[in-house]
This record gives sequence, C-alpha cells and structure tokens, in this order.
Amino acid sequence: MEDSKDINHYMNRLGAAAKSAAGDLATVSSEVKNNALLYMAEAIDSRRNEILQSNKVDLEKATNKAIGDALIDRLELTDERIDGMISGLKIVASLPDPVGEIEEMKPTPSGLEISKMRVPLGVVGIIYESRPNVTADAAALCLKSGNACILRGGSEAILSNSLIAECLNQGLIRADLSENLIQVVNTTDREAVTALLRMEEFVDVIIPRGGKGLVKLISEEARIPVIKHLDGICHVYIDKDADLDEAISIAFNAKTYRYGICGAMETLLIHEEIATKILPELSSKFLDAGVELRGCKKTCKIINTQLATDEDWVTEYLAPILSVKLVEDVDSAINHINKFGSAHTDSIVTSNENSAENFMRKVDSSSVMHNVPTCWADGFEYGLGAEVGISTDKIHARGPVGLEGLTSQKYIVKGKAQIRGT
Amino acid sequence: MEDSKDINHYMNRLGAAAKSAAGDLATVSSEVKNNALLYMAEAIDSRRNEILQSNKVDLEKATNKAIGDALIDRLELTDERIDGMISGLKIVASLPDPVGEIEEMKPTPSGLEISKMRVPLGVVGIIYESRPNVTADAAALCLKSGNACILRGGSEAILSNSLIAECLNQGLIRADLSENLIQVVNTTDREAVTALLRMEEFVDVIIPRGGKGLVKLISEEARIPVIKHLDGICHVYIDKDADLDEAISIAFNAKTYRYGICGAMETLLIHEEIATKILPELSSKFLDAGVELRGCKKTCKIINTQLATDEDWVTEYLAPILSVKLVEDVDSAINHINKFGSAHTDSIVTSNENSAENFMRKVDSSSVMHNVPTCWADGFEYGLGAEVGISTDKIHARGPVGLEGLTSQKYIVKGKAQIRGT
Repeated sequence: MEDSKDINHYMNRLGAAAKSAAGDLATVSSEVKNNALLYMAEAIDSRRNEILQSNKVDLEKATNKAIGDALIDRLELTDERIDGMISGLKIVASLPDPVGEIEEMKPTPSGLEISKMRVPLGVVGIIYESRPNVTADAAALCLKSGNACILRGGSEAILSNSLIAECLNQGLIRADLSENLIQVVNTTDREAVTALLRMEEFVDVIIPRGGKGLVKLISEEARIPVIKHLDGICHVYIDKDADLDEAISIAFNAKTYRYGICGAMETLLIHEEIATKILPELSSKFLDAGVELRGCKKTCKIINTQLATDEDWVTEYLAPILSVKLVEDVDSAINHINKFGSAHTDSIVTSNENSAENFMRKVDSSSVMHNVPTCWADGFEYGLGAEVGISTDKIHARGPVGLEGLTSQKYIVKGKAQIRGT
Repeated sequence: MEDSKDINHYMNRLGAAAKSAAGDLATVSSEVKNNALLYMAEAIDSRRNEILQSNKVDLEKATNKAIGDALIDRLELTDERIDGMISGLKIVASLPDPVGEIEEMKPTPSGLEISKMRVPLGVVGIIYESRPNVTADAAALCLKSGNACILRGGSEAILSNSLIAECLNQGLIRADLSENLIQVVNTTDREAVTALLRMEEFVDVIIPRGGKGLVKLISEEARIPVIKHLDGICHVYIDKDADLDEAISIAFNAKTYRYGICGAMETLLIHEEIATKILPELSSKFLDAGVELRGCKKTCKIINTQLATDEDWVTEYLAPILSVKLVEDVDSAINHINKFGSAHTDSIVTSNENSAENFMRKVDSSSVMHNVPTCWADGFEYGLGAEVGISTDKIHARGPVGLEGLTSQKYIVKGKAQIRGT
C-alpha cells in the first residue's frame, strides 16, 4: 500500500466488514461467544512456538533500531506471557455476559412499561503500543461484550500481532462466527490510524492504550468518541487520624509496587499535625528503596531533601521520584488533588469515618480509595475480569473499563396500543 | 463586547466561575437543592408580568425580522407556558436525587471492597434555540443532578431568557447557593458559542437542543463531548401477526399526534402478507387527515399514491408526509431500520412474542417499542420527570436524557491496608 487513497480504501473495507459482523453478533448466544474464546485459547496454545518465533523476529528488528529497553521489555513474549493470554481468554469466557440484560420493567402513569436493555456499542477501534498481549486481551473483551473490533498495534509488534490475530480468527471460525469480528490492521503506515479515527460511519468508539503522547495525538485527531486517560498523577493523603504503621505501609506500597504503572502514587500529602511523627521514618524507607523525594517548604524543614517546584505537583514521574506536601486538613488535601491531580486514583488513610466520607465524595477522580494504596487501580483487581483501558473522562465510563464499559443501554417500551392524546 | 478577545475573556470567566461553583455543589444536600428549585418557581410566579413584558419585546423584534411563524410560536411565552415552567421546577424538586447513590459494596479476591458512587458530570453547556422555557427546564435538571450550567439561548429570546435567569438566580441566592451555578451567556455574538465549545478546561459536556443544522454545526466544532440527536427518522413496522385495528390506531397516532416532534413516525413498514388488508383503510385515514403518502413500488400497486424516491427513506419530514414500504418479514424490517433510520425510536406492532423479541434485540435504536406509537418517546412519559435532550449516540446515555444521564459513576474502593504483592 503506497498511497493514502489505497490505505483509506483498505481501512474502509475493514470498517464496513466490522460493522456488518457486529450487527450479526448482537444476538449471538453467550455460549457461542464463550466457545469462540476457548477455541482461541486452544489455538494460541497449539501455535505457541510459531508465536514465539515471530516475536523473536520482531524483537531483533526492534533491537537493531535501538528502541529502548522499556519498549523491548513490553514487546517481548515469553511462555509465561503466552500463558497469561490464554488464561485471560478463559477468564473472559467465564464472566457473565452483559448483553441483553434487561432491568425490571417499570410502569408509567400512561400505562406504558419502560425498561433498559444492555447492548453492545458496535465497533471498537483499539490503538495500542508495543505489548502484543493486548491483541488477545482487548479482542476477548470486545467479543464477549458483543462488539467487533479493529486493532492497530505498534509497528514494532506487527508479526507477533498478526500471528495472534490468526489464532483468534481460527477460534471465531471454529465457533461459526465471522472472522471480521476481530481484524488487525496489517499496515504500519500512520495514515491507517488517521483513517480509523475518522470512520464515524463504521466505528463507534476509540480506545487508545499507550503513553501520553500517543493518547493525546489520538484524542486531538479523532472524530469519534475516545475513552482514555492521559495521566495518572495519583495521590495518597495521610490524615491526622491515620494509623501510622498502616499509613507508612500504604504510602510505601503505593509508590514502590511498580514505578511504571498509571496507579503509582506520584504525590504524597500529609496532615501537618502528624508530619514530624511519620516523615522521618517514611523518608528513610523511601531513600533505602532508592526513591528520590521532592518536598514542599514545610517538608524540607522536617527532613533534609530537595525542594519541589511548581512543576512537580503536575508531573507523572513513572519513576522512583515522589513529591511530598504537608496540608492543613482534609479539605486542603481534596483541593490540592482536584486542582493538580489527573482524576485517576486517589486515596485517603484515616480511621475517621467523617474525613473518609468527605474525601470520597469530594475528590473528583475515577477511583477514590480509603485505606488502600493507589496501585490497586486495575480492572482485574476490581473484579471486572480484565480491562480494556482506564478512563479519566467524565462521560460514559470512569476508571477501569471492562465488559460493561463496552456496552450501553437502550430504552425498551412495551404497551397495549396506548394512544398519545393531543 | 466588540472583539473576540473580550468575548473569550468573558466566556472564560463564566467557565471558571461555573467550575468552581460545581465543585462546591457536589456535596450540597438534596434538601438545599430542592429548596432552591421551589424558590425559583416562586420567583418566576411573582415576576410573571415582567417576564411576559420582556417576552413581548423579544416577540416584537422577531416579528420585525420576519423570522417565521414556527419560530415565533416557540418564542412566545403565555401564562400557560409560564405555569409549565413553574410546575416543571416543582416536579424536578420532587424527583429522587441521584447524586451520592452508592451501589452495594462487593468484595474482591484480595479483600478490597468495591462499589460505584453516582456523581455529577461537573459543568454542562446547553445551547438552544428560541424556546425560553428551556432556560428553566434545563437549569433545573442540571442543578438537581449536581451540575453547574452555562446556558446559551437563541439571540431572539435574549430578554426573556435573561429575566428567567434572574429568577433562577434569586432562588439560588435565597437557598444560600452560588449564583454561578446557573449562568446565561449575555451576548448574542456567535463567537461566544465557539468559545464555549472549546473550554475543555471548564466544561464537561455540551447538550445542543434545536434543529439539525444547529446540532450538526455544534458537534463539528466542539472539542468537548456532545450529547445529541441529529434526526428522528422513526419507523413503525406492522407485522403479519398484528391486530389490525390496533395497528391502524398506532400508526395513525405515531404520525399525526404532532408532525414536528422528533418521535413522529416518518416511515411506515408493513408486512407484505397483510398489506392488502390494511393499506386501503390506513391510506384513506391518512388522506382524510391531510397526510401525503409516498409508497414503494409494491405499495403503489395496492393504493393509488406517489412513488417514493431513495431520498424519502432517509428524510425526517417533520410534516404531514409519510413514506410507506412493504417488507418480506420482520428481519427485512429490522434491516431497513438499521440501514435508513437514525437510531432514534422504532416500534413493532405484533402479537407474536418471538417477532417482538427479535425486533427489540436487533433494532439498534435508542428506544425500541412494542405495540406503542413512536410519539411516546419523551423523558417525561418515560418517568424521568423531564428531559434535557434526547441522545442517539452510542456512548454514555441513549434516548431521553434525564437526571441520571447528567451524572456518571466513580469507583469507590475500601480496604484494610491491603498491600499489593510483587
């Protein structure tokens, strides 16, 4: 495919095929969808060596391009990661099917009966970076929730993704479903993404998974609704009524569980009344773990550390760096979070139920937590089975997006030929 | 305000004030919000004559501009319409408050407890045409659902809207709430709309209410999510297993209840096996009511009427015109609706439960109906109390949007200092 006319033509074909396949899927039984998912798992298992071989070629090319260790790590498939894909497919097969769920019918004054039925969104476009396992994870959630998907992975993973997609298609065919339900864009040309973002006629929602740069570009270019998060500037607030041992353990885990995840704590807020009691111990724990601290002026009076700049409060480090600020009370903590945070995940540590309630209500983030480290923000841990992404948007879905987030509800109205009067 | 710099500055001030006021409203009790709504109703009642006077001035200006009878009709306020606004405010006060509702907490394998809390969206921008009563209706729904709103009405209604907004602000102040919760844009300059559509920092969702032209322009220009419907190309399908008397009465009401509403039937689909039994009577009923019929070829063989063109199947007439098509079976009807409809409201008339179930599941519209005319599509009739608009989009809210559609859900996570392992 050399020119953009060809690419647009190709993408339109994918879009039309996806839309048509999605229409048929809306009424397919859960059993058939679950069979397809289990067949996919079998296909991946039986073609494991082929997948590892293709991945090796992708890896060699990426290494030659000197693409960076973090990216190489995400790109690499191992037996363990393939097992992860397989068990992911089985878990999604075991989850309850949200499609077709009808709420209780309610009568209205006119005698109509009203309810809502849960229905698929239609066609989901997923744009992601290097991890090839997203191909199976995302496709499984889309299929189970009744949606067709068009997957556009990173160019460095094209061989791995294509082979995984072949296995997924084998599963669809074996279950008598259309292979157009899961399509992988087979060109690495950037024009294909542009085309995908503008196919309003065929695609109902776009979910980007990757770094902030990718997500930002996509949201700006898309003519279709995007479910996304840009940043994970997550806070833990240690209240004056916190159990200090618990507080230290929660704050430490929130930062050090994994530095690179979006739920990692980036700023620690501490009630100033307890700062002298807790900061020295916390600080030495963090320093031992190799975490660099950047404190507000008051913090720097208690522990000897670098002064934070204005920039620090709005930075997602994704690294062993932590900004620390002392606050006057729970409302100051809430104000700081709502002003400088990214509406992702924020937690309060306190044994005071009123302070907790106040925090949970007023902090305007997609996940608010009480006595839990922010690193728990994850669809699997929330009991969703898996997640197709995390949303910090206000409409549709907030927080980890699982099967329900890939559906919507339409109104169902039943009656006995009631006539609307004039 | 002459230049766009001033207008942007003014709009940014409104936006920042709205956002700040919305933050405080999120935790205000239902009682205070309800009081504000009742005080607003009192203020409108007591300043009724002033409002009618201002409206008279708006009407005179509009008449001089020869703006069209339909628009003049929508612009005009009468005692009855003012009573409608007052009772609307009282109804919204009486509705249950969705904000703060928490689903049952569910335990996860790690011992965390997970739930969702219903929360306001934040700041809602409403852009509407001539009807001044939208000012009170929309503001009431936004306030009750915990949102601040910025209202931009039609330029021809500016005096009426400003005076109604004054009454709403009186109610807010009397209830000790910020008057910035309800702000009316006080310039008729089009630049103000452009600014509103781009204030991502302050505005969370835009709801346009008006003709297709307005809504289309707004969706194209907006950088903020838009809840909208463009067209109401609604269908009634009369199945071969329909009760013929009921079918005639439903089809007739769906078209003639009111020609100008978005839930009016625009295309009638009839199973070809019963067409000769029902079409002649239906046709003469429609002709007596002054409704022009445009039929498919098969229809024209049964009744003497004009042949429909391809354009007819995708046209929202909003007028006494109806296209009629014979179909082979319920699946052909479903395919026609999903292909040519606008995903608004579609109804099947049948006594066959299987056909009804098939139709309800497969028709991909925001409201699907059984044995009911499409003209019932309305938030008040659905028991929502009122509606701020109707959505034919796939994500967030579909169908009439009431209080719940103006909210979202965030995750609530509670624990006992559980640490996430490595």
